[in-house]
Amino acid sequence: MTSNPPSTPTNAQMRTALQRYVDAINARDTEAVVGLYADDATIEDPVGSPPIRGRAAIADFYGKVVPMGLKLRMVAPVRGSHGNAAAMAFEVEAPAPGGARSLIRVIDVMTFDVEGRFTSMKAYWAPDDASVVA
Amino acid sequence: MTSNPPSTPTNAQMRTALQRYVDAINARDTEAVVGLYADDATIEDPVGSPPIRGRAAIADFYGKVVPMGLKLRMVAPVRGSHGNAAAMAFEVEAPAPGGARSLIRVIDVMTFDVEGRFTSMKAYWAPDDASVVA
Repeated sequence: MTSNPPSTPTNAQMRTALQRYVDAINARDTEAVVGLYADDATIEDPVGSPPIRGRAAIADFYGKVVPMGLKLRMVAPVRGSHGNAAAMAFEVEAPAPGGARSLIRVIDVMTFDVEGRFTSMKAYWAPDDASVVA
Repeated sequence: MTSNPPSTPTNAQMRTALQRYVDAINARDTEAVVGLYADDATIEDPVGSPPIRGRAAIADFYGKVVPMGLKLRMVAPVRGSHGNAAAMAFEVEAPAPGGARSLIRVIDVMTFDVEGRFTSMKAYWAPDDASVVA
């Protein structure tokens, strides 16, 4: 049960979509990740950088990032909202030069269309949210 | 060291402001909470509800909420950005009817002016992010 307006997806739909996003990146399934987005969606990652827009740009973005072999771990349950948005706190482990791994602490905020696809993604992380772990 | 543009506060300033926000609410210091906001700031809490704007509305909002005796706990380090925004995942414990306590899981996203004051606050939480704990 949620109180989201009828023109928005339910919180259950939004939570499921965010879990699918994490799972698809961890499975290196670029196509599945891109398929979670609406056609004209925007991505601002990190927040403060120029946004990209549209399926081709989004496919290009994840086509570079997902094959790197990122490992995403949520650090708290997804937060829903009373509208068409949800947010999650997570950590990303990524390969770093010299065989090391970098760890980046991130909060993603997504907005959704009525079918539960992402219409925008904003990734909050600063240079000092990233560190080399091993 | 951060790469935020010169017209934005540093990530250190934004992290400090968010910690002060948590501390001031926990100390039931309404005036200190309101003082963290810029004059014409907006609050959307929860996201999906009508935003409020301006110091008088913000003082009214926290004047009702802070004296309730909320207890905020961050569940992960504050995330900065490459711009004028930061985000934090936290839990709020609040009094509930019958002497019980409710727990609400929240992610707040704030934007900042150059002096490090909040220009907007958005609180992401859904009805089912709240539960009664005892």
